[in-house]
Amino acid sequence: MVVSENWTEATPGRGTVDITLTAQAVVARTDVVEGLCTVFVHHTSCSLILCENADPAVRRDLETWAARVAPDGDPAWEHSSEGPDDMSAHIRSVITQPSISIPVRSGRLDLGTWQGLYLWEHREGPHRRKVTVTVID
Amino acid sequence: MVVSENWTEATPGRGTVDITLTAQAVVARTDVVEGLCTVFVHHTSCSLILCENADPAVRRDLETWAARVAPDGDPAWEHSSEGPDDMSAHIRSVITQPSISIPVRSGRLDLGTWQGLYLWEHREGPHRRKVTVTVID
Amino acid sequence: MVVSENWTEATPGRGTVDITLTAQAVVARTDVVEGLCTVFVHHTSCSLILCENADPAVRRDLETWAARVAPDGDPAWEHSSEGPDDMSAHIRSVITQPSISIPVRSGRLDLGTWQGLYLWEHREGPHRRKVTVTVID
Repeated sequence: MVVSENWTEATPGRGTVDITLTAQAVVARTDVVEGLCTVFVHHTSCSLILCENADPAVRRDLETWAARVAPDGDPAWEHSSEGPDDMSAHIRSVITQPSISIPVRSGRLDLGTWQGLYLWEHREGPHRRKVTVTVID
Repeated sequence: MVVSENWTEATPGRGTVDITLTAQAVVARTDVVEGLCTVFVHHTSCSLILCENADPAVRRDLETWAARVAPDGDPAWEHSSEGPDDMSAHIRSVITQPSISIPVRSGRLDLGTWQGLYLWEHREGPHRRKVTVTVID
Repeated sequence: MVVSENWTEATPGRGTVDITLTAQAVVARTDVVEGLCTVFVHHTSCSLILCENADPAVRRDLETWAARVAPDGDPAWEHSSEGPDDMSAHIRSVITQPSISIPVRSGRLDLGTWQGLYLWEHREGPHRRKVTVTVID
């Protein structure tokens, strides 16, 4: 059996949004006890990560790192139709994940103690991001 | 139900090949209406990405970025048996995706408007790349 | 049908551990002939990669690359509660994979000739890492 549900996440601009509980709520509604949950974002300038969920400095450091490795407004980028954060957002999306699959165990996402599921918005401005959760058992 | 199909994609050398329609055709042949489609490449020097599909400059910029972050012929690489693009290709594969899972909705890959599925060839020369699409419902 | 099994992998510290055969053994125990196998790590400072399995220099070069792109003890990292390899490990995890899905064909992981499945430990010290394999048919 495959059940899926989607929602729109309003992001306040660049940064990580914890969507663990929203995904968990979808899993709960499916009544699946043991299975697999796949999360997917329908965009090319935001992405998914599983990241340490205790210290917010970890996500701040990820931004620092991304700014160094895939900087905004780099003169090498040919594509900049939507501004200096356009191409850098595409790069950051490509090197993280558009989909992540997480085991479901005892009716819950079987994440490690320190694992949070984050939607990483790579654009500077607020966006509406569609996320689909698919649960299989 | 799980149905899978594979094909060989002939790549002309380094760069991205749009395989969205080929994957979509596999999904269509399965007659699955709602489910999950997982795409997989059987190689370690090419990879999969979901990328902006409107402006080809985005994929050119990805190459520019990759050349900077994982350059060919870097004197630090110990592994170069197949040439200067050997190790750089492995690195580029590891930081992108060997498998991507995409929801199937109304019998189609439920991609966002700007999402294209690309096989990213990281070797300079043409290669034959095996791709498997697995559809679950 | 979805069957899953997990185990704890003891890593000797930073570096790659080949878990191909362990994952393959789980697939064999499920008696699944054609399907999909999803591997998942329950941690944020180790990750999964599919990598060239013939020349160990490839994995050494990956470490060399990671040390350059996400160095230990970078003065820019705010998060360092567990030492200089703490934040670098989180970054390395985020740009590789927490989950990888591999087709199952004729009762085996349908990997390419040169593809090995590796648990990449990003912390300097030895750790115990939980891995779950989920097989769907």
